[in-house]
Amino acid sequence: MRVYNFSAGPSMLPLPVLEKVQKALLNYDNTGMSVMEMSHRSKPYEAINAKAEDLLRELMGISSQYAVIFVQGGASTQFEAIPLNISKSKKADYVVTGIFSEKAYKEVQKFTSAKVIASSKDKNFSYIPKIEKSVITPDADYMHICYNNTIVGTRFRSPVDTGDIPLVADMSSMILSEEVDVSKFGVIYAGAQKNLAPAGVTIVIVKRELAENPSPQCPTMLKWKTQIEQNSLYNTPPAFSTYVAMEVMQWLKELGGVKAIQKINEEKANMLYDFIDNSKFYNNGVEKEFRSLMNVPFVSPSADLDDTFVKEAGKNGLLTLKGHRLVGGMRASIYNAMPVDGVKSLIEFMKKFENDN
Amino acid sequence: MRVYNFSAGPSMLPLPVLEKVQKALLNYDNTGMSVMEMSHRSKPYEAINAKAEDLLRELMGISSQYAVIFVQGGASTQFEAIPLNISKSKKADYVVTGIFSEKAYKEVQKFTSAKVIASSKDKNFSYIPKIEKSVITPDADYMHICYNNTIVGTRFRSPVDTGDIPLVADMSSMILSEEVDVSKFGVIYAGAQKNLAPAGVTIVIVKRELAENPSPQCPTMLKWKTQIEQNSLYNTPPAFSTYVAMEVMQWLKELGGVKAIQKINEEKANMLYDFIDNSKFYNNGVEKEFRSLMNVPFVSPSADLDDTFVKEAGKNGLLTLKGHRLVGGMRASIYNAMPVDGVKSLIEFMKKFENDN
Repeated sequence: MRVYNFSAGPSMLPLPVLEKVQKALLNYDNTGMSVMEMSHRSKPYEAINAKAEDLLRELMGISSQYAVIFVQGGASTQFEAIPLNISKSKKADYVVTGIFSEKAYKEVQKFTSAKVIASSKDKNFSYIPKIEKSVITPDADYMHICYNNTIVGTRFRSPVDTGDIPLVADMSSMILSEEVDVSKFGVIYAGAQKNLAPAGVTIVIVKRELAENPSPQCPTMLKWKTQIEQNSLYNTPPAFSTYVAMEVMQWLKELGGVKAIQKINEEKANMLYDFIDNSKFYNNGVEKEFRSLMNVPFVSPSADLDDTFVKEAGKNGLLTLKGHRLVGGMRASIYNAMPVDGVKSLIEFMKKFENDN
Repeated sequence: MRVYNFSAGPSMLPLPVLEKVQKALLNYDNTGMSVMEMSHRSKPYEAINAKAEDLLRELMGISSQYAVIFVQGGASTQFEAIPLNISKSKKADYVVTGIFSEKAYKEVQKFTSAKVIASSKDKNFSYIPKIEKSVITPDADYMHICYNNTIVGTRFRSPVDTGDIPLVADMSSMILSEEVDVSKFGVIYAGAQKNLAPAGVTIVIVKRELAENPSPQCPTMLKWKTQIEQNSLYNTPPAFSTYVAMEVMQWLKELGGVKAIQKINEEKANMLYDFIDNSKFYNNGVEKEFRSLMNVPFVSPSADLDDTFVKEAGKNGLLTLKGHRLVGGMRASIYNAMPVDGVKSLIEFMKKFENDN
């Protein structure tokens, strides 16, 4: 029996996609082979690769001013790739709104002179700080934000107005979950393992001019330019992950695209936040305006009860609800592939658990 | 209908493994979820990760002196990771025996003072050069070789005796295909998409002391040390590829391990080389002693006939036989997962094609 898996990532994939992938696993589209076995220089794989890019462009409204590449290494590799690719003044501004944006900031020290210009660490990352124009470094190469903070459950509600400075956003945990105006960004990057595909492929959407002058220090494999020029086929790509991403995007398109899934995501999130807010047993400490649509952390009255909650939920087919080790409590990650019924089941369980304890 | 796929990589996977993976695709080992959806911090995935390492250690006889990590980025990323991880004298020796070892040499220029100490380029890479002790740089950080040359179809027959200098080998296209004495090497690395798994995971086997002092320039995600300390779970790993690698290694173990598959590989290769050598129609230009067990390039009497051969073979369920664009002709890659019957079918077709033309 399939469970509801609230993992923060890797996480649930849409069941119809999994079924389609399963059916084609030994013989994709009458090629007589699995996508896993397919040369990345073959026509069927080139079609998959091109379709994945086309679908992403269509779903996100990405103009031809931007290049789209599918690479390896995860968002963590992009932390360092960013200053190695965009390196003019060797200055960069960071907004620290959670564990990963802090990590991104710490990782770049050896490649650029990075500065934290705003942070919400003072209140345990429970809000998104306002970024005054006056704090922005006038000649910064870029400003980096993490659009949705997986661990603490916050999100930006709109792109930061950075003037002429390119805005770089880690969208790993919210890509394709709500509408975003790509033209406001210089670079968008995202590990695929939350809303898109099995782990192993990372999406980079970059304004072409920003990829033109990588630092001489930049390893070839971290250069965006390398993969842009080769349509992400400079070396053997993580083909199976890209293929599943393509199928997930096809599923999303048929569902009505990002607008449609955003509505469902808001419905799921509102249902859960409303239940928590109306309960005296559960609590979510995030300022309402900045609550994530994707990751909902919450606590019960005690750490002991939290442990029991996670165990009991697991027995009821509601898996991976333990909060991040740095935060504790519970966290329900309700990405695109989490059905409304999954959230309803969680709420039913939460009610029962509250009554029993 | 499944075909015989002679692709140089990604390439065939063992049918029993594909069937097992297909069966478990929606629900792995009663977890209620696909491995693609599984948190990399969960017990079931940690078990997969540990088992993959254990199986590799067992199959290759890797001692505890060596660390084993599963990383992203392909062998191409390791080209640059090597000098960034092993950087004492900033000198390195390269043996150039094909397109990829040449690429590896070219890629490292910005990180180390690399020198080609032997090459077979003079004869189109049709042999493996003898490496005299006198040409080795006495204080080189390492010597780099490519153990099997996928494009040209040659292989080393034994590790180079480098004295105290660590021998670094790209084994992407022959790992687990024949017995190798790991203790003769400082570093072994291999993209998994030929003998092991779908593309997306790369194996690095490194003598622990060689990972201790990376260059300050080395990006965190390219540091072996980062992943060694975290059991390859520093960031989200390419979990599905590692899982399939684990199943492939389990299959290989049940088959009798590397010794057993080497016998089968020798049988397949000998059958094909013998047929080619006894034919006046086909030719393989590689010196017999250095012929690859994995990649068998050959030509017919003309480039036109080569084209026809590839097309006709395709119609007969023998796929991806076109030689690399830099070499032309045909190439049959006959990795571990290629059944003996696949090679027999190819030879039957070659006979027929010769008679018809």
